[in-house]
Amino acid sequence: MKNNYLKSNNSNSGYFYKTLYFKQKVDHFGFINNDEFQQRYLVYGGFRPTQDGGPVFFYTGNEGDITWFCNNTGFMWELAKELKAMVIFGEHRYYGQSLPYGKESFKDPTKLQYLTSEQALADFAGFIDYLRSDWYPGQKVPVIVFGGSYGGMLSAWFRMKYPHSVQGALAASAPIWQFTDLVDCGAFLKTVTNTFKHHNPTCADNIRNSWMTINKVANNSHATLEKSYETGRKTIGDTFKLCKPLQSIEDVGTLKAWLQETWVDLAMVDYPYPSNFLEPLPAWPIKGVCSYLSKPLTTDVSLLQSVYQAVNMYYNYTGKASCLDINQEATQDLGTMGWDYQACTEMVMPTCSNGKDDMFEPVEWNFDAYSKQCQKQWSVTPRPMWPIIQYGGKNITTASNIIFSNGLLDPWSSGGVTESLSASLPAIIIPDGAHHLDLRSTNVNDPKDVTQAREKEKDIITQWIKDFYN
Amino acid sequence: MKNNYLKSNNSNSGYFYKTLYFKQKVDHFGFINNDEFQQRYLVYGGFRPTQDGGPVFFYTGNEGDITWFCNNTGFMWELAKELKAMVIFGEHRYYGQSLPYGKESFKDPTKLQYLTSEQALADFAGFIDYLRSDWYPGQKVPVIVFGGSYGGMLSAWFRMKYPHSVQGALAASAPIWQFTDLVDCGAFLKTVTNTFKHHNPTCADNIRNSWMTINKVANNSHATLEKSYETGRKTIGDTFKLCKPLQSIEDVGTLKAWLQETWVDLAMVDYPYPSNFLEPLPAWPIKGVCSYLSKPLTTDVSLLQSVYQAVNMYYNYTGKASCLDINQEATQDLGTMGWDYQACTEMVMPTCSNGKDDMFEPVEWNFDAYSKQCQKQWSVTPRPMWPIIQYGGKNITTASNIIFSNGLLDPWSSGGVTESLSASLPAIIIPDGAHHLDLRSTNVNDPKDVTQAREKEKDIITQWIKDFYN
Repeated sequence: MKNNYLKSNNSNSGYFYKTLYFKQKVDHFGFINNDEFQQRYLVYGGFRPTQDGGPVFFYTGNEGDITWFCNNTGFMWELAKELKAMVIFGEHRYYGQSLPYGKESFKDPTKLQYLTSEQALADFAGFIDYLRSDWYPGQKVPVIVFGGSYGGMLSAWFRMKYPHSVQGALAASAPIWQFTDLVDCGAFLKTVTNTFKHHNPTCADNIRNSWMTINKVANNSHATLEKSYETGRKTIGDTFKLCKPLQSIEDVGTLKAWLQETWVDLAMVDYPYPSNFLEPLPAWPIKGVCSYLSKPLTTDVSLLQSVYQAVNMYYNYTGKASCLDINQEATQDLGTMGWDYQACTEMVMPTCSNGKDDMFEPVEWNFDAYSKQCQKQWSVTPRPMWPIIQYGGKNITTASNIIFSNGLLDPWSSGGVTESLSASLPAIIIPDGAHHLDLRSTNVNDPKDVTQAREKEKDIITQWIKDFYN
Repeated sequence: MKNNYLKSNNSNSGYFYKTLYFKQKVDHFGFINNDEFQQRYLVYGGFRPTQDGGPVFFYTGNEGDITWFCNNTGFMWELAKELKAMVIFGEHRYYGQSLPYGKESFKDPTKLQYLTSEQALADFAGFIDYLRSDWYPGQKVPVIVFGGSYGGMLSAWFRMKYPHSVQGALAASAPIWQFTDLVDCGAFLKTVTNTFKHHNPTCADNIRNSWMTINKVANNSHATLEKSYETGRKTIGDTFKLCKPLQSIEDVGTLKAWLQETWVDLAMVDYPYPSNFLEPLPAWPIKGVCSYLSKPLTTDVSLLQSVYQAVNMYYNYTGKASCLDINQEATQDLGTMGWDYQACTEMVMPTCSNGKDDMFEPVEWNFDAYSKQCQKQWSVTPRPMWPIIQYGGKNITTASNIIFSNGLLDPWSSGGVTESLSASLPAIIIPDGAHHLDLRSTNVNDPKDVTQAREKEKDIITQWIKDFYN
């Protein structure tokens, strides 16, 4: 290693790293398009006592700006310090700064076609090959990959497909089975519901009742609450202090989708201490949200106002927002354009609800409608079975050295590996954990189970490194 | 199984099978090109006592017409009969009848770009997934892949990359390490030389001397042999009874390349009984060829005439040819266009010679010149390191259930796995074996070592099937 990473500080969250760019082929799987692009990597070598050998911790970046994942994966930094590892975060192509065709990347289907998980894994393989041969020629360098969520799926798949490249993978909250026919399409929203029930069963009941109330009020052409309004939609818009009025019944659909996403996000970030992963939030945010919905709310007025207070806590914890925007994404750091495309090609994750096992409006999974929407939006037809053919579905016991960790509060745990598949494919369960809580920095308010999970992960990773040198 | 394969006979070599076609995506790794093509499969189910379950033997087709491989892989048929397995031969895309764009497949670089090993493996994975879900829904079906040469590389890689799809692979004469920096570029032609030396050391010496003699005679503008000729090139052309005269010094280069290929091919097909793999030949053809070159030949005349007699035996064993054609391929069954393209993209297998350890003219490996030729011919630049990044090079011990068999007479053994890498990655050596002799039908003249190799292979495959059901 020639660079002194200790002297660089490009981080705004206390982590020090150097930003590097590595030239990648846009198309690893064909030989006609020889275009190249610069892929971003964040690298820190300061934990290494010497310049030679030693483990490398590599984060397989997911659908967003890599600095965001870097700043929300404190455990990897802590463990790297302890095990004297080089730290690298690799940005996923088509996200953050790693855009193969710059601003044009999303404009043209022919430019977008290289956004696939296979190409992303090949990027990481190419970089790690370069790292071994150019940074550490002739040395034995164990590489451990880390990832959360889709990044965890990539970590697991990377160890499956390129086991020669890495010694093991920590796949945190990685829903590798959230594909067609592998898990029930209702499991995801059922888990969201359970997380709300876990805090307060009445809260979930109120949310379940809210959909019908919204529908009822929205369909009224005259006032239904105390004051006199022109239409029910105005009532709802005013109650929710929406930035834009609900002008049509489609807008009411948007509101409901936004509310559903809010409840889902809350289950994902139900962390035991104040955090700012998707939004700035207090500790155990569902507890806070549910404080408004903890008692049976029998009138339309009280129910809608309480739902408003609940979501206002989520979107406006800082008190700075004067209105709520139902078209706003939860965070600017996630590349929603890219993920929309991936969800329309490989990453088809069926979801449905029945309003009984879950607190949502009953909606069946309709692949044909989904596919039509993808055709319209991206001119692509999803191939829902392809990831199963490519990555093996539930038949993955020939793989080794992958830790699957899941927090049970996290909706994505419904598509994750929650039982050990073999001695070298252990599942670690964190009952009080939300979305990849274990990857976050140690916190005084951490529940005991996440501390234990991290200890286990450390022991296993330490053993992988030992095995590699033997 | 609905079809009765016993009633079908589409074979011209005693094997009965049904020819099926399976619709494949031309591009598995992108979502813009949704073109499809019909991939050919040869299927025989007559060894199964019932219509349910049971093992499937699947040949991962290589660079040629699949019927040719089918007719030269008798061991798979014999073993299938014994183990009551379904037999399937899958044709490789861009060969035989499996042309994604019909006759246009090779005309346009954009149509040819889907000819890669990754796409071929994805074809096989898609078909096996279909086979399991549509032919045997709900049943446990172990699939064993077989392949020889490049087909053996595909078998090995298939088990590495899609271990959920198959229980094990017999990779016969598969030079998976014949890539840049993995083996010495001189090893291949050294092995050819050793195979000739094995029969007769003087034979190899005569061949080594022949290059300089050809050069010397070709560069003479006047007669050098008894009779008077216009030029040395005419002398050579007449001696070799060439169909077309050697009009330029480039033609002399073509002659030498053709001679070198002949010696290489002879080492590949040095089978212990009369065969017709590349050309109709007697048993141990090198013995026959070397009978003309078994004594020191000190005059130009005698050396050239003896070399002619030797190659004439190879190309004209049936005595039907009135002249020798140095532009003729050894067999029409191999898709040389396709393989040329693959060799110019992924399958870069460096070869060199020094004239000391081998019997060839000294030629260094020159990647730049090779690459330029590829640019000129196919408008592609080879990526010689890509197969190592993709398939792991020598670092493949995380894989399991792959038999690597190699005959030591076979030049390709120089790039093969000739020592067991682990208990589940056994190497089987056949000292008296040429190119995937073990895959051929049992023959009364089989050397003992190939019989033993087949016994071992049977035992291991039987165990894989047992393990699968347990």
